[in-house]
Amino acid sequence: MTDKGTNLDPWYDSYADRTAGLSASEVRALFAVASRPEVVSLAGGMPFVSALPRELVTGAIDRVMSQDGGAMALQYGSGQGTPAIREHIMQIMAMEGIRGSADDVVVTTGSQQALDLVTRLFVNPGDVVLAESPSYVGALGVFKAYQADVAHVATDAEGLVPEALRETIAAVRSQGRTIKFLYTIPNFHNPAGVTLTWARRLEILEICRDAGILVLEDNPYGLLYFDQPAPQAMRSVDDEGVIYLGSFSKTLAPGFRVGWALAPHAIREKLILANESATLSPNSFGQFVITEYLDQADWRGQIESFRGLYRERRDAMLSALGEYLPSLSWTVPDGGFFVWVTLPDELDSKAMLPRAVKELVAYTPGTAFFADGGGRQNIRLSFCYPTSESIRTGVARLATVVNGELDLLSTFQGARLGSSRSVRSGVSMPPPNLS
Amino acid sequence: MTDKGTNLDPWYDSYADRTAGLSASEVRALFAVASRPEVVSLAGGMPFVSALPRELVTGAIDRVMSQDGGAMALQYGSGQGTPAIREHIMQIMAMEGIRGSADDVVVTTGSQQALDLVTRLFVNPGDVVLAESPSYVGALGVFKAYQADVAHVATDAEGLVPEALRETIAAVRSQGRTIKFLYTIPNFHNPAGVTLTWARRLEILEICRDAGILVLEDNPYGLLYFDQPAPQAMRSVDDEGVIYLGSFSKTLAPGFRVGWALAPHAIREKLILANESATLSPNSFGQFVITEYLDQADWRGQIESFRGLYRERRDAMLSALGEYLPSLSWTVPDGGFFVWVTLPDELDSKAMLPRAVKELVAYTPGTAFFADGGGRQNIRLSFCYPTSESIRTGVARLATVVNGELDLLSTFQGARLGSSRSVRSGVSMPPPNLS
Repeated sequence: MTDKGTNLDPWYDSYADRTAGLSASEVRALFAVASRPEVVSLAGGMPFVSALPRELVTGAIDRVMSQDGGAMALQYGSGQGTPAIREHIMQIMAMEGIRGSADDVVVTTGSQQALDLVTRLFVNPGDVVLAESPSYVGALGVFKAYQADVAHVATDAEGLVPEALRETIAAVRSQGRTIKFLYTIPNFHNPAGVTLTWARRLEILEICRDAGILVLEDNPYGLLYFDQPAPQAMRSVDDEGVIYLGSFSKTLAPGFRVGWALAPHAIREKLILANESATLSPNSFGQFVITEYLDQADWRGQIESFRGLYRERRDAMLSALGEYLPSLSWTVPDGGFFVWVTLPDELDSKAMLPRAVKELVAYTPGTAFFADGGGRQNIRLSFCYPTSESIRTGVARLATVVNGELDLLSTFQGARLGSSRSVRSGVSMPPPNLS
Repeated sequence: MTDKGTNLDPWYDSYADRTAGLSASEVRALFAVASRPEVVSLAGGMPFVSALPRELVTGAIDRVMSQDGGAMALQYGSGQGTPAIREHIMQIMAMEGIRGSADDVVVTTGSQQALDLVTRLFVNPGDVVLAESPSYVGALGVFKAYQADVAHVATDAEGLVPEALRETIAAVRSQGRTIKFLYTIPNFHNPAGVTLTWARRLEILEICRDAGILVLEDNPYGLLYFDQPAPQAMRSVDDEGVIYLGSFSKTLAPGFRVGWALAPHAIREKLILANESATLSPNSFGQFVITEYLDQADWRGQIESFRGLYRERRDAMLSALGEYLPSLSWTVPDGGFFVWVTLPDELDSKAMLPRAVKELVAYTPGTAFFADGGGRQNIRLSFCYPTSESIRTGVARLATVVNGELDLLSTFQGARLGSSRSVRSGVSMPPPNLS
């Protein structure tokens, strides 16, 4: 939907200008497809919550309900979130080198809402937001909803490219346009699967500080590393220039919708007011349950077990890609949920999707992750939800689709291409530049 | 906070224009005061959740966690809300005469978020929203946050005055300004405590239909009537012209943050997209627990018991007002949480508040409920949270404050006023015009 409505809508002429920026994401349409049990979905970003030890969660809930009959957990809460959960959040962030005050944490309805509120605070229509190339589809949707324009910055196997950031800032400003912030996912990037090196983190912070550009550091996957922790958070070396977003959705469970922002103090005050305006307060019940869980359960051990689970599934995916699709290239994630695959030049990830669904495998076309029409040559594969066995099945089906498409192209264009591309030798290394 | 920031904020110059509209509400500041145990708070709008039978809630939670270990309840959900809770919501709305499809319901993070999303969809900066005089403080905050201007419409003991609505529409339009919707709370109004008559509902719908103005009907208190149900919902007679907002926060518990909008179909589609952009999905856990609760518990009986509880507290408040403050006038609510009191001309509800807190009673000054500086002569008293005994104590303390203020004024202005106003004879009827 790119227009503001249809002629059947009596309120067609009443919508605000910003409403034209609301559109159904490609990921959203896939949810319906992926829910059919016969389809192997490598499309969604749903964590495998069934791995959460049920007794740890029910124990936390029981303790919440035994305190005053749960009266506090059933009541309205503060627009900032409870002091208890904010103290726990400080401990969690300390694992990635962040020091600060629980007073500067604002609990939100998932970190998605923190993204929405930060954008609301800063973006006027026509302002520019910088983001990796590719970037998180849900963030691009928020930026569009607030009528921002996104300038993608080149990204490679080591994450955002500092020199490209310098060039993009200069190019945008030479057009007389205003940059409001850099949105970045430094760890186990969604969708690119890459991690920003420590040296680049420092360089990017310096570039942004010099240019007076705020950094919005989104880190939902940081604790889900496979071998060793990612470099420390950008927020750990810059209190005033970075808003850090965190979430319990991937490390614990998304169903409670509890995320947070750690912001410079003056911004934090405005975030609380925006939070109150949007929802009065984040849900008390979820905050109380998570607080009890963090108080009593071995949550570090539980996250360690999640790491093992997702590591095994990542390995299954990389091994299946090497076996079934050796001619393609892809990134090798050290954590998180996603692998970013580059197709041969002549394929179109979006056009190929219906054929994939017919073969009972779903993926997210790369176009979802670009605000500028890019990504036709890429697909995002997620290894978070399906079992290792399903992942192998899904990748095998994907190979059938890719090879079928290439055979079809070679049949029609054989004279020009010279040979079928489906048997070309593969390079399974990250491409030098993901954009 | 009316400026965009302070000189101590390095991001002072970066905020969006709309951020100037974010300000701490007067209700918010009172939460801190009201939390001191020695203060009788007649200020907040918190339901008395301790009256909720604990075993009914824990039973619902246990059933949720016993289905697949709660895997669905812990997972992301649809941006529209679960089909099961939307079916229940249709049954609840049928009690107020509303027919429709569960497909047109969108579950939100409390109905506050529905208010936010509807405003986001429709309001450009400078657009006008019509609202009762007075109106809900949280709605006024949302309208301001989206840079709308509010035109208050006169309201009396029978609710919004249709003739005043006609005049306001004409006056606003004669200035060349665009009206986006009428925001109204027909039942047991917050803060006015009045209920819109059936005849006026029909007349107002006709006025809005003729003028092409959308109606936003907010009904959190409808099922909490004391003697007989309020007239049926405005949405029951107009599918295409009314967005209806409902909530479980008052009838069940606000801690789950589950509310909803029932919208004309074309608007509903946009609301889902806006909801996904804002939070991805409303919290699954709360939706699952409420669904189980509605499935299994005698929720009609529970709401009936809430009616009895709040009726008793309303009676305590009216009786205490009659006893301790017979010289004032106030509204007589037939349901809900609030009584709206009119002070003598020479008093100022906002200026009087510090003295009230010193006397250990809190209220909400009427100024919180006006976008135009009105309300200095009014206070909102809530009878939802304190016990009947506390209500009597609180009103007695309030009388001390009011009479003390009047005595002070008569001492200084005695010559002009002629006599102390604290002993003047009272009229305990609703005033003819609340504005």
